[in-house]
Amino acid sequence: MFIQEAAQVPAQAVQAGIGIRWLITDKEGAPNFAMRVIELQPGVVFTPHQHPYEHEIYVLDGEGVVTNPDGDVGVMRPGVFLFVPPDEIHGYRNTGDVPLKFICVIPLQK
Amino acid sequence: MFIQEAAQVPAQAVQAGIGIRWLITDKEGAPNFAMRVIELQPGVVFTPHQHPYEHEIYVLDGEGVVTNPDGDVGVMRPGVFLFVPPDEIHGYRNTGDVPLKFICVIPLQK
Repeated sequence: MFIQEAAQVPAQAVQAGIGIRWLITDKEGAPNFAMRVIELQPGVVFTPHQHPYEHEIYVLDGEGVVTNPDGDVGVMRPGVFLFVPPDEIHGYRNTGDVPLKFICVIPLQK
Repeated sequence: MFIQEAAQVPAQAVQAGIGIRWLITDKEGAPNFAMRVIELQPGVVFTPHQHPYEHEIYVLDGEGVVTNPDGDVGVMRPGVFLFVPPDEIHGYRNTGDVPLKFICVIPLQK
């Protein structure tokens, strides 16, 4: 069993104002999927993008919106969860005054 | 994309004082893994058990311990995450005054 505080896992910069903490990966022995925490600073936009794998997301803190090329498609606040299917275009924007933090689980690449 | 509040997903009783909300499953189109929230009421014990699939856990609220047949093996509080490998014996106990709530992701059975 592996137990740790998420805050002790260093955040890697995805781009300015966006960090990602890889909590559980194949390095910890995970056989199927990886758990990360993604953090957007206030006002930061994660441009809509797509990839051939799904996201399972749970919002921990902050306020934001999930977006696609047509605009805002949903509100992100603590307790909201999202399923983004493979290949669907999606982005995020922090609309609040504190970091927008959410868990994002993805399949491991094999 | 599927977006909802976790609190709107009905909790199913696992046993007295333990509920589980299945947030994202194959019904929502998930191809690989399922996201659930598990809730233990104060004082409740989830007896140690095992199964051939892993858990990826993130604690949302409350205080507790993760256990095995030898005793307590770690503290659960908000921001703590756990990886429980397949077949490892594990249980939980709520040691606080409020529900112990955590995300628990498992592979989908295929």
